[in-house]
Amino acid sequence: MAISTRTTIEEIAQEAGVSIATVSRIINRKGNTREETRKKVLDAMERLDYSLNAQRLLSHAGSNTILVCLPDFRNPYNGVIIDGVQAAALRRSYHVLLMQAGDIYTTFDDYESLLKNNTMAGLLLIQQTSAQVLEELALRCPVVMCSEVCEEARVSYVTIDNYASARTATQYLLSIGRRRIAFLNSLLRNNYARQREAGFLDTLEGAGLVCPAEWMAHLSEVSFDLALAAATHMLSDPDHRPEAFFAVSDVYAAAVIKAAKKLGLRVPQDVAVIGFDNIDISLMTDPAITTIQQPSYQMGYQACSLLLDKMENPAMPVKHVLLDTELIVRSSTL
Amino acid sequence: MAISTRTTIEEIAQEAGVSIATVSRIINRKGNTREETRKKVLDAMERLDYSLNAQRLLSHAGSNTILVCLPDFRNPYNGVIIDGVQAAALRRSYHVLLMQAGDIYTTFDDYESLLKNNTMAGLLLIQQTSAQVLEELALRCPVVMCSEVCEEARVSYVTIDNYASARTATQYLLSIGRRRIAFLNSLLRNNYARQREAGFLDTLEGAGLVCPAEWMAHLSEVSFDLALAAATHMLSDPDHRPEAFFAVSDVYAAAVIKAAKKLGLRVPQDVAVIGFDNIDISLMTDPAITTIQQPSYQMGYQACSLLLDKMENPAMPVKHVLLDTELIVRSSTL
Repeated sequence: MAISTRTTIEEIAQEAGVSIATVSRIINRKGNTREETRKKVLDAMERLDYSLNAQRLLSHAGSNTILVCLPDFRNPYNGVIIDGVQAAALRRSYHVLLMQAGDIYTTFDDYESLLKNNTMAGLLLIQQTSAQVLEELALRCPVVMCSEVCEEARVSYVTIDNYASARTATQYLLSIGRRRIAFLNSLLRNNYARQREAGFLDTLEGAGLVCPAEWMAHLSEVSFDLALAAATHMLSDPDHRPEAFFAVSDVYAAAVIKAAKKLGLRVPQDVAVIGFDNIDISLMTDPAITTIQQPSYQMGYQACSLLLDKMENPAMPVKHVLLDTELIVRSSTL
Repeated sequence: MAISTRTTIEEIAQEAGVSIATVSRIINRKGNTREETRKKVLDAMERLDYSLNAQRLLSHAGSNTILVCLPDFRNPYNGVIIDGVQAAALRRSYHVLLMQAGDIYTTFDDYESLLKNNTMAGLLLIQQTSAQVLEELALRCPVVMCSEVCEEARVSYVTIDNYASARTATQYLLSIGRRRIAFLNSLLRNNYARQREAGFLDTLEGAGLVCPAEWMAHLSEVSFDLALAAATHMLSDPDHRPEAFFAVSDVYAAAVIKAAKKLGLRVPQDVAVIGFDNIDISLMTDPAITTIQQPSYQMGYQACSLLLDKMENPAMPVKHVLLDTELIVRSSTL
């Protein structure tokens, strides 16, 4: 399909019912446009399958390097995803570069300054990113999300069903007779944190239960220390103490076990704990951690494959892939 | 100092007592040169402070991105170093890109294909790399090593005294009365593994002891599973069983604790364990792990600062920085 950029911009303008200047402004990020107009133009682009390299200012034809952005290299969960990404890239002779985006890269401009000076053929985001930044990036460079996703953006992703997995975890704690359940979560700006919290609270509600505010924590990073402080605080009042924890990371679950033992409580008799991820840490603690296994390696592998497909075939439609999780019962709840 | 490339090559040839063609061959990696001649030329380059950007084919003046190469994102030890690197780079407005070099990038050509297509201003290696590859890279791009180093190459680094730290760990196990000490090490292609093994064996020898071959393991990656298998095997014979382990990673030490418990052995009464690194994992196990604390964050911060200094002042001489470690005694040996 050999369409010149000019023709395409005209087509988009016609399809969206706006001027060529408006389309150009949106593509080139010059001046302000009303959100409504912006959406109209993006919708038109999508209908017209507007994904030509001509406008991909930040991607470099002929480059064989992809960039992976993630929040944090300290969280061992990410290491397994990266192994999957690396394997898929290697199979098709691509280089993988990575970046700890964290709180440093949050706007389109942050990414642009980096991407302009480096020849990246595509972007894989394992990182919470706003719909607007994602769509700006996706106009200029093939983008796929992995693990952490943004439902509102027109971007392909591979992840798990976080809501259903959190329901499974919570139902399991209810099934072993626990009612007073605390929740160690990450910040709600993360889609996975919002989904898991909804799954947790809905399941409690279905059983006629609530989680008091003082038993819910939203930790700013996947940190053992932060989780240890939160769990210790929640377990310190003998008159008002949770009898189980649902932790959205095995790192947090390990901290609950540590906190409980320090306070002389038995796991699981006094406090049961379920984690998330099934990283090696879940086998290092004593007792070992009951957890929701994520197919992390597969997630990385499939997301990278999807990105490479998109790079080789820009017209590929947006795909959303959900991989299965599995409840693994160990001694922290038995 | 405004010297043209041509003049400099002539100067090097004169200094080394070889032809201009020979110097050019070595710089451009064309044809073969005897190792002796190569060394002569490299020595001359060093004497002449040959570090002009003119020859730095792979570095890009004006780029504000550095590349960090490490073996493995699964090892949480690396995550802390990266945080330090990131902080130093951010302070001076540099981007940090990372790469899992592992066993994929082992020759100069592997790196060259990547670096040619990306505008990196400098390279930070946390990765075992041969002296030859390092010197090839250092001719073309500022290079600093961090944590894992190569003594034979003319490259700046920031690390710890691995030999002395291993002696400290071993002496401590001897001081609590343990004689039959097993050793869980990484592959000896790593400088840190060779240094720690020498420190361990020399200290045993000083006490009139040896470590039998069947109690020494060299694991191919920092993997909990591999270490668990090795430790389980070593602990399985009741008639020939170590009473202590020195593990060169807290991940390995966590595996020793797991293996011992599975076999019904008590830690530390039956088997004492000392690890290395002082990552969070050393607090997650029960008992908590006695370990050698590495100043990982500082190491990353200082190595990155050194690289940025070198980028801004190419004439900066090679520096070797050793940071202090500390023995932290916890319940796995008490």
